[in-house]
Amino acid sequence: MPPMPTYPNPSGRGSIITLLTDFGLSDGYVGAVKGVILSLAPEATIVDIAHLVPPQDILAGALALECACSTFPETTIHMAVVDPGVGGRRSALACRTEKFYFIAPDNGILTLALTHHHLKETVHITDISPPLGRISSTFHARDVFAPAAAHLARGGALKDLGESVTEVIMLEVPQPQEGAKTLTGQVIHTDPFGNLITNITEEDLAGREPNELLVQVGEHTIKGLSRSYFQGGSDKPIALMGSGGRLEVSISGRSAAELLGLSRGDGVVVRWR
Amino acid sequence: MPPMPTYPNPSGRGSIITLLTDFGLSDGYVGAVKGVILSLAPEATIVDIAHLVPPQDILAGALALECACSTFPETTIHMAVVDPGVGGRRSALACRTEKFYFIAPDNGILTLALTHHHLKETVHITDISPPLGRISSTFHARDVFAPAAAHLARGGALKDLGESVTEVIMLEVPQPQEGAKTLTGQVIHTDPFGNLITNITEEDLAGREPNELLVQVGEHTIKGLSRSYFQGGSDKPIALMGSGGRLEVSISGRSAAELLGLSRGDGVVVRWR
Amino acid sequence: MPPMPTYPNPSGRGSIITLLTDFGLSDGYVGAVKGVILSLAPEATIVDIAHLVPPQDILAGALALECACSTFPETTIHMAVVDPGVGGRRSALACRTEKFYFIAPDNGILTLALTHHHLKETVHITDISPPLGRISSTFHARDVFAPAAAHLARGGALKDLGESVTEVIMLEVPQPQEGAKTLTGQVIHTDPFGNLITNITEEDLAGREPNELLVQVGEHTIKGLSRSYFQGGSDKPIALMGSGGRLEVSISGRSAAELLGLSRGDGVVVRWR
Repeated sequence: MPPMPTYPNPSGRGSIITLLTDFGLSDGYVGAVKGVILSLAPEATIVDIAHLVPPQDILAGALALECACSTFPETTIHMAVVDPGVGGRRSALACRTEKFYFIAPDNGILTLALTHHHLKETVHITDISPPLGRISSTFHARDVFAPAAAHLARGGALKDLGESVTEVIMLEVPQPQEGAKTLTGQVIHTDPFGNLITNITEEDLAGREPNELLVQVGEHTIKGLSRSYFQGGSDKPIALMGSGGRLEVSISGRSAAELLGLSRGDGVVVRWR
Repeated sequence: MPPMPTYPNPSGRGSIITLLTDFGLSDGYVGAVKGVILSLAPEATIVDIAHLVPPQDILAGALALECACSTFPETTIHMAVVDPGVGGRRSALACRTEKFYFIAPDNGILTLALTHHHLKETVHITDISPPLGRISSTFHARDVFAPAAAHLARGGALKDLGESVTEVIMLEVPQPQEGAKTLTGQVIHTDPFGNLITNITEEDLAGREPNELLVQVGEHTIKGLSRSYFQGGSDKPIALMGSGGRLEVSISGRSAAELLGLSRGDGVVVRWR
Repeated sequence: MPPMPTYPNPSGRGSIITLLTDFGLSDGYVGAVKGVILSLAPEATIVDIAHLVPPQDILAGALALECACSTFPETTIHMAVVDPGVGGRRSALACRTEKFYFIAPDNGILTLALTHHHLKETVHITDISPPLGRISSTFHARDVFAPAAAHLARGGALKDLGESVTEVIMLEVPQPQEGAKTLTGQVIHTDPFGNLITNITEEDLAGREPNELLVQVGEHTIKGLSRSYFQGGSDKPIALMGSGGRLEVSISGRSAAELLGLSRGDGVVVRWR
């Protein structure tokens, strides 16, 4: 994926804070977070990315953040909270890359975003005033991350949030294994259309002729890569490079995940001559 | 449904861009689109209509857009993307009606909205600068439709987006068949409450006495139209005119779709004396 | 939960209107409401709280509103519509507390929010101009509640909306029963993580030593309260005080509701020595 050109932050309005969570949209959790932000940083513009990330699925959150974050204007504050370890020993991160701020639990959810946006400065968030007077052990999005995001949105410095650190926890995303004339990867995600997204990237297959690749998935062998989802008819899986730069297996107009009975962890082998 | 009165666009803030998609809220697709819009048109106000339209269901998208679009202020830009043919030969539309702009794939998703808002000017979008440097074949919402919406939000002219055209693809929505003293229609949608929405409209039954109509659906015959959803008790289907001006079959406090085992395509017959 | 400190309404932008509904995100209902608000009060900032409240579940709506409302800035207008009785005899409420406005059907959905925010003034909404020229009997969120919210957002007075009243319908939320050394409550909600939220509050257990409590739920007896969700391993239920100040039963990283086969109405007994 080519880099997004740099856009300066719009003058005339407050910072953008994006929200990505697994909080669902049936309860008040997302609203409580938004209320804190708007109370502390009234000029901020809140932008929902996604709140139906599968519960506690850090990798799914990391993939959604990677897909969404790069197109936003410079100085956008991306807050991503999938946080099974809330209230425990995991740290709370605030960090700065050349273009963005990121606020998240230190559990790997930034892993994929940070492959595109390199860290310039990172702190563990310790110095915030909790909006309800104390920090709960169950809801740091409201009590820690939202106040930190609001601080940055008001133009506050990163270093005011806590001590500088140099280590960030990275998720171990399974890497494809290269053989003589094969690359063996796996499904790492199913999107809402039922497309099976793999850990094999455009770069992994750079220089190979798309038409001559064989993609083996379940009991199917797919010849060549398609350019778009609607090719191949509604009963035949196709393989293509998805919009996030990863190899996907898809069935036109239907859910490949359901029809092929595949999901995260299932193997995908690419062969060439 | 009576026409919505005309409201001028609010001064003092940027254009409104509404978003309607089938992208789901577990992934980063919606966020990537919002980021492009805010990068290119920082003053725009983005308003989410719905992102859980059933995947690739153009008719469901058309119904949601019809239901939502008319209440917005003048010059609102409605962007609706349910796009099974992305990356293929279908064109990308930008058009203007008296009150609104619409941006969508040319696949029929505008069909119902355009019965209320007549086209003044239409172009095929060809002249945009893709925000990531090239146009993918899988994600035109990000690469084509969002830049086009941003162009209009910044006050750009429709004709700058591409060549003017006069034909727009319309969905063939099944029409009810009139008999001697019957109207035979069908279920075209199930809403989140389980209400079965039919293709029979208020106009189709204009002049008929609601109390004397018989509505036959599945094995049930419903006598007369109700005024509201909570009539009829929780085990008896009722029929009523829904808020979008279409005949609906409903069961108080429960899902008629589930209890009657009916869905899109199932027949509904209205009889009168 | 300690009270949220008071934040003045941000100058420089319009009122905040929050939306909480059971309208789902596959149809155009939410969009139609937003369009009316933005047409009538162009300066308003609309903030989505949640639109996937289980259909017609007033208690679930009341819990979501309670969880979300308190963190918002002063003068925020909270509009909450879960409305099985729409079009019938139930009244439409607009009310003012010290900090907020609330707009909702008079069916109990405000019950829990109003335990934290006491009513100062309440009216039955009767004097609004319906945006589509008439008030439907099926969609008061669009035809009644949205215009009322827009009226307040523009700085209009509460009393202009209708006659003052003193009675508001309250939901009968089941109360825990105190025994000699027991408190018998019940599950009242399952959140998106599968946590079982009970009607036993922090205040109900004030002064008791958390480590010495026994919580009996289904066939399980849980010793002591945990501080955070990830304690206890992934196959053993734990009990803890949730972020809304209610006793919850949870299983680390999994859905307690699913694994224990419990849901609303199931009993929970707390014992002490």
